Amino acid sequence: MPQDPFDWIDAQHERLRAAGLVRTLRPRSAGADLVDLAGNDYLGLTRHAEVVEGAAEAARRWGAGATGSRLVTGSTALHATLERELADFCGFEAALVFSSGYAANLAAVTALSGPVGSGTLLVSDEGNHASLIDGCRLARADKAVVPHADPEAVRKTLAAHGGRALAVTDSVFSVDGDAAPLAALAGVCREHGAALLVDDAHGLGVLGRGGRGALHAAGLAGARDVVATVTLSKSLGSQGGALLGPARVISHLVSTARTFIFDTGLAPAAAGAALASLAVLRREPGRAERVRAVATGLYERLTAAGLTAVRPDAAVVSVRAPSPEAAVRWAADCRERGLAVGCFRPPSVPDGVSRLRLTARADLSDEQLAGAAATIVATAPGV
Amino acid sequence: MPQDPFDWIDAQHERLRAAGLVRTLRPRSAGADLVDLAGNDYLGLTRHAEVVEGAAEAARRWGAGATGSRLVTGSTALHATLERELADFCGFEAALVFSSGYAANLAAVTALSGPVGSGTLLVSDEGNHASLIDGCRLARADKAVVPHADPEAVRKTLAAHGGRALAVTDSVFSVDGDAAPLAALAGVCREHGAALLVDDAHGLGVLGRGGRGALHAAGLAGARDVVATVTLSKSLGSQGGALLGPARVISHLVSTARTFIFDTGLAPAAAGAALASLAVLRREPGRAERVRAVATGLYERLTAAGLTAVRPDAAVVSVRAPSPEAAVRWAADCRERGLAVGCFRPPSVPDGVSRLRLTARADLSDEQLAGAAATIVATAPGV
Repeated sequence: MPQDPFDWIDAQHERLRAAGLVRTLRPRSAGADLVDLAGNDYLGLTRHAEVVEGAAEAARRWGAGATGSRLVTGSTALHATLERELADFCGFEAALVFSSGYAANLAAVTALSGPVGSGTLLVSDEGNHASLIDGCRLARADKAVVPHADPEAVRKTLAAHGGRALAVTDSVFSVDGDAAPLAALAGVCREHGAALLVDDAHGLGVLGRGGRGALHAAGLAGARDVVATVTLSKSLGSQGGALLGPARVISHLVSTARTFIFDTGLAPAAAGAALASLAVLRREPGRAERVRAVATGLYERLTAAGLTAVRPDAAVVSVRAPSPEAAVRWAADCRERGLAVGCFRPPSVPDGVSRLRLTARADLSDEQLAGAAATIVATAPGV
Repeated sequence: MPQDPFDWIDAQHERLRAAGLVRTLRPRSAGADLVDLAGNDYLGLTRHAEVVEGAAEAARRWGAGATGSRLVTGSTALHATLERELADFCGFEAALVFSSGYAANLAAVTALSGPVGSGTLLVSDEGNHASLIDGCRLARADKAVVPHADPEAVRKTLAAHGGRALAVTDSVFSVDGDAAPLAALAGVCREHGAALLVDDAHGLGVLGRGGRGALHAAGLAGARDVVATVTLSKSLGSQGGALLGPARVISHLVSTARTFIFDTGLAPAAAGAALASLAVLRREPGRAERVRAVATGLYERLTAAGLTAVRPDAAVVSVRAPSPEAAVRWAADCRERGLAVGCFRPPSVPDGVSRLRLTARADLSDEQLAGAAATIVATAPGV
């Protein structure tokens, strides 16, 4: 009998350390001492005066917490307003707000897998976000993982299955910033009567007219066979997630989705901040264009200097590094020169390629953009 | 081939409607037009001036959102302070903050199931919260569901298994408000070298000296074989969750827990509000005594009037109703008279017993307590 039931953690830690996989937290200070190309505040709204005041005012008016499940005391008129505004902005019939995008994805995949025993097949892109993968694991349905961004593979899988199915994909993939072929996927799904669930976490605020998202850009917003999830914690600078879709789908989730029913409602401050961000974005649609221009500008400067990068479809720019060690050193060198960048390496990246991961921001000036690119080029490892 | 991939939702909705299971959202207004015995704001802190200002000040200082995963840009010094303060207040070595208690429970169960292939057995109380159940479903480990609050059943299950195990329980069960036999469970776990994970969502702020929680009350806080999860959204009046335990357990979760790594960090406003609530609670430990006294007072008044209720171990008072229909009407009659109460009925309650679910609040005056009890008695269905 083990007397110390957590003794395995030390051995596991040693294995993680040897593989370079131990993560540590590095709390940041309140001052903006670094130029940030690592966070997801794509539109530069999280410190916008109106957004901060939206959070503060909501806390004052509604309290610091929602006080209960959305089904008991946790639904305020503020949540209802945010849901109407999200649906309206993105072009969907209805919306449902969750305490996180992770919770929204767990809810969407599990609740849309059909009644138990319906034989629904979940068809999931191999590059999908962890929350979609966990949703597939929780769902009582059969699963098929398909090659990345490959509508033909989805078609074959649906044809072989022949019954009810839900195809699940990110709109913009987090690691490389590449976009899913949404129009082709929707076409394949319609051929086979399958539903399509798209996580537009990296699309909202960046893609589509004035930042209305990847579904809007693809002409799929509001379709009766398409459901989207979004996050309030990236472009909208807040916290939380939402599901967008037909009203009957939303009603179904209200009655059945466990991460909706058994979770405390989103804090009023987060709802108020997201609403304020949507108002700014409606007034200043150029923010969406700007973040895409900054991403493209970064890509062009880096590739012109001989670096290898993926042409960005949204705000994420992925730059290849020659080795995991080189990627870690590169990111550290950037940080030393005042630039925060993301660093992805195996096994967190399924293809084994190490890279810097840069996230563009709409509030980056041309000078900051040029300076950031110069820093990345100057610190690039020799190849 | 179905042309409408969500057509099954209409049939499913009809089945739910026939079973009385369709839920609808009833957004509340900002005014306190009802006496609230339905929410989880046990200490009356969610609208406390210092707590609201804690949220507003954090949003002003840190922004409306955390901007990224805790591992990238989402850890602020505010998160670190909250983690130290939570650990210190509850008597644990370390703490880790999540965006919700649901996410903390998913992380705890999955990450503490040991390395894949270790043969760890999860031993889960049949009355556990949905988030613990979903954690067990996600974990790659064997599971055994044991009868409610039954250390002898846990002992037999551990003895029959003979290997690594993690026992999982709520400290206070949400439906009836009864407490788990924590000391006996810990004894049984230690006999068999098993670890114990306790969700103290309803204990923090209510049980233990000055509200330090059920683990503290049982002398188990800080033990090397015990881990607790708590929520920031009940007694602390905010949003979020946390895991409390040995430092090596916390480090392990930082490197491995998917709902930590792949989720955006908790919004600064929620962290700031929770910190402010902890400060109020340290200064006014009587709030914890008061909420227990209110719960006991409610119980005594209701049973003195002939109603059947469960003697409360914490803040939740469960009152038996003769039928699901009677429970629904009872709750509606209370609401008409200005009192919000919870209403639980089959199949949301595993034992098939319908009940009103009342939650005590420390800021309820004796007059409000008497008035609420009188309303519940006056509207009670004939038996």
